Amino acid sequence: MEFTIDEIALLLDGSVEGDGSAKINRLDKIQEGKAGSIGFLSNLKYEKHLYDTDCSAIIVADSFKPQKQYKTTLIRVKDPYSGFTKLLETYAKMVKSEISGIEEPNYFHDSSRIGANCFRGAFSYVGKNCSIGKNVKIYPQVYIGDEVTIGDNCTFYPGVKIYSRTVIGNDCEVHAGSILGADGFGFAPQPDGTYKNIPQLGNVVLEDGVSIGANTTIDCATMGSTHIGKGVKIDNQVQIAHNVSLGENTVVASQAGISGSTTIGKNCVLAGKCGIVGHIQIADNTTVGANSGIMKSVTEPGKTIFGYIGFDIKGFLKSYSIFRKLPLLQDKLRELEKKL
Amino acid sequence: MEFTIDEIALLLDGSVEGDGSAKINRLDKIQEGKAGSIGFLSNLKYEKHLYDTDCSAIIVADSFKPQKQYKTTLIRVKDPYSGFTKLLETYAKMVKSEISGIEEPNYFHDSSRIGANCFRGAFSYVGKNCSIGKNVKIYPQVYIGDEVTIGDNCTFYPGVKIYSRTVIGNDCEVHAGSILGADGFGFAPQPDGTYKNIPQLGNVVLEDGVSIGANTTIDCATMGSTHIGKGVKIDNQVQIAHNVSLGENTVVASQAGISGSTTIGKNCVLAGKCGIVGHIQIADNTTVGANSGIMKSVTEPGKTIFGYIGFDIKGFLKSYSIFRKLPLLQDKLRELEKKL
Amino acid sequence: MEFTIDEIALLLDGSVEGDGSAKINRLDKIQEGKAGSIGFLSNLKYEKHLYDTDCSAIIVADSFKPQKQYKTTLIRVKDPYSGFTKLLETYAKMVKSEISGIEEPNYFHDSSRIGANCFRGAFSYVGKNCSIGKNVKIYPQVYIGDEVTIGDNCTFYPGVKIYSRTVIGNDCEVHAGSILGADGFGFAPQPDGTYKNIPQLGNVVLEDGVSIGANTTIDCATMGSTHIGKGVKIDNQVQIAHNVSLGENTVVASQAGISGSTTIGKNCVLAGKCGIVGHIQIADNTTVGANSGIMKSVTEPGKTIFGYIGFDIKGFLKSYSIFRKLPLLQDKLRELEKKL
Repeated sequence: MEFTIDEIALLLDGSVEGDGSAKINRLDKIQEGKAGSIGFLSNLKYEKHLYDTDCSAIIVADSFKPQKQYKTTLIRVKDPYSGFTKLLETYAKMVKSEISGIEEPNYFHDSSRIGANCFRGAFSYVGKNCSIGKNVKIYPQVYIGDEVTIGDNCTFYPGVKIYSRTVIGNDCEVHAGSILGADGFGFAPQPDGTYKNIPQLGNVVLEDGVSIGANTTIDCATMGSTHIGKGVKIDNQVQIAHNVSLGENTVVASQAGISGSTTIGKNCVLAGKCGIVGHIQIADNTTVGANSGIMKSVTEPGKTIFGYIGFDIKGFLKSYSIFRKLPLLQDKLRELEKKL
Repeated sequence: MEFTIDEIALLLDGSVEGDGSAKINRLDKIQEGKAGSIGFLSNLKYEKHLYDTDCSAIIVADSFKPQKQYKTTLIRVKDPYSGFTKLLETYAKMVKSEISGIEEPNYFHDSSRIGANCFRGAFSYVGKNCSIGKNVKIYPQVYIGDEVTIGDNCTFYPGVKIYSRTVIGNDCEVHAGSILGADGFGFAPQPDGTYKNIPQLGNVVLEDGVSIGANTTIDCATMGSTHIGKGVKIDNQVQIAHNVSLGENTVVASQAGISGSTTIGKNCVLAGKCGIVGHIQIADNTTVGANSGIMKSVTEPGKTIFGYIGFDIKGFLKSYSIFRKLPLLQDKLRELEKKL
Repeated sequence: MEFTIDEIALLLDGSVEGDGSAKINRLDKIQEGKAGSIGFLSNLKYEKHLYDTDCSAIIVADSFKPQKQYKTTLIRVKDPYSGFTKLLETYAKMVKSEISGIEEPNYFHDSSRIGANCFRGAFSYVGKNCSIGKNVKIYPQVYIGDEVTIGDNCTFYPGVKIYSRTVIGNDCEVHAGSILGADGFGFAPQPDGTYKNIPQLGNVVLEDGVSIGANTTIDCATMGSTHIGKGVKIDNQVQIAHNVSLGENTVVASQAGISGSTTIGKNCVLAGKCGIVGHIQIADNTTVGANSGIMKSVTEPGKTIFGYIGFDIKGFLKSYSIFRKLPLLQDKLRELEKKL
């Protein structure tokens, strides 16, 4: 995809200073760009980069006055940041909307239905009795089992695996290698020390607008549904066990893990690598710190929890700062003992 | 798959109170069910849900006496919990036994053999000189390399990758996206700061009855075998490094990691996110707590280890409770210092 | 692949004592070998295993004098360890060089180019306008998106997914299930509590000689590149967020996670499960301990950082040893309080 600087200026309702016929095929930071890149200058902290950038074009404010010579072409607009964002979004839409049609070979069971303007990549698989909406992009090597329901405008990147009976709303995206609906980890201990599989017969439900990163796993419920609320954003390598429920607009960062049957409220933020035990409730608007362990329910909304066994973040950081000085504390105690 | 309530009552040797002709296609909890679901009521703590459940049928005890009106149909049996479990197992068996046959296209090398009643999904791959038993289910997009040996009644869910020379016993299952036999992480540091690959020429061996979750990785041994004992249960996103050995009936929860050449005993429980360093031994019946780090061998069987650098769980929790009060402790110490 | 003991002795310039016609198809440790295995004895600590090994052959030193009877065949060489390493490398080369050619069906877009002596496995996918060098091995079910550039001598194991616009140097290898270039985790919070996707338009760049384990994820940059330096070695299930940069010859062990826009220096070692927050700099030659959390930049090169919120390892271990004795410390303090 290539545009001339003139074409971009037209899109942004801006004016060109320099060679408008040069071709742009990449968006970049002003300090990292190369020939063919376009960047922007909004915060004047970055102004110095204008004078040695390799970007072919830079979006600047109408009011901007250069202090030195530069070799790039300028596009002047009212608000460079908004302009650049508009460009980003336009670019993203064009990249994403390019994909549609059917690549061969793929497997699509006769009993399943799919709406208009979809993409089905090579080596993708759709099982029996699936109902799939319109504008759905199924990349190569995706697996969709039997009796799966999918709404409109969803994207499944290469290699996503969706087990049978999963239900997915509209406007969801799942990145490569993520697994929805594998068996929950349920085994009944037997008297002889062995374990017997407990059948996992529920499913996974994603409400509208859910985003899931790469290589994340969301297990099916033992019975009923593992439930991911509207607008939830989940990063890479997150583990969500059977019968978990995530409230609307909750965000889960990479490598976090949530154990079975735990309910997380709305608008929570679970930071990277945190771990939450099973069978507890986390109130709305809770923030769980990076690498923190949550061992019991959080009933009061809006708190920030942190620590190896998490408690309120201020308390933890105070204790940890003293932990760092424990050798000193011990010395003082010994001195006192001697004195007495 | 659909049954009438009458058919289910027949299976459970129970009697119907209500409309036995209604269709059931789903098992659910009494408090979560919908039309078409069947649930059960065993613990009377849940009795209140009977009176407003949306399940089409509920399994209850012969002796159960309702206190209020309800709209669902009852199936009366001797033991509702056993009845429901029987239903679960029957349902699970029917779902799983449905799959057999060969979907096209798939890749199966001429030199490999596979037993009766197997399933080979579309886009699955079986390399050279493999020996695969009967009743083996190879879902779509599974990869099985060269010279792999697999017993009977195994299931490999979509996208599982099994490197060459892996050996798998009977009755094993591996969920989607898990990788068996990738190279161990072995690099020899060179004088110039670079690293040289150490060839990883061993394999992975799974004994009978091993279950593995989704997106787990088990590396091949440098030489010899990474060894997973009989009946071991491994959850999602677990990392097992080269030359590790797991004893019989050991359970490993999600996101746990075991470093190279460590030997874990029998009947151990490794909780979620725990990490175990390389080249140590863990005694039988050891429990490692969630997110705990094990830095040295555990020689005495039956202990529970917990903590950032794990030690006995009671000791850790005692220390941690004082850690939470460290600011108070520090204040007291300062007071004492002033007094002296 | 099978060789006689005589053929191996020829390769190693050694002499045979025993039956040189027996066949070898496996390399093993002296204490673990079976019929058909060859092992070695270099460190005499392991001499006892010679007398009951089941290996068909053992490589020993010219000067070695057995003290007891043994049933295996000996190959005498100058340096048994070097001899065995040579055998390992020869074996590894033979195994790896076996694979080339094209398996059907696969998908390779007309507009892409690939060099000589490559392997393209069944169900592999190569999108538009890719440029791929020579001696590249693309295993089954690998996905390579559009406009991807790959150098010579690279190997992509089964199921690797490479998003569009990724750039890969020479001599790289990526193990099964790893994902390069999925969207970075970027969402702009909106006033109503929802989140809006921030388009992720950058890419991932791997310099020459990078090794990546299984099920690792490396996200594309928001703009510009997530950058993995020359000779970097990354283990399984590592998470590397958008716009991260890893310096030359840095090593990252399994389940480590690096948050967005962090820069790691050269020749660092990041141990298993460590977590590094976003937007910081880590100096060259830093070692981060297992499961440690790095919350701020490390400016001085060559330090070892350890701990829940990491600081210098000696300090942490000192503090932690006192943490273990906190109940004792508390008791002493109480005694002192009573005395006063």
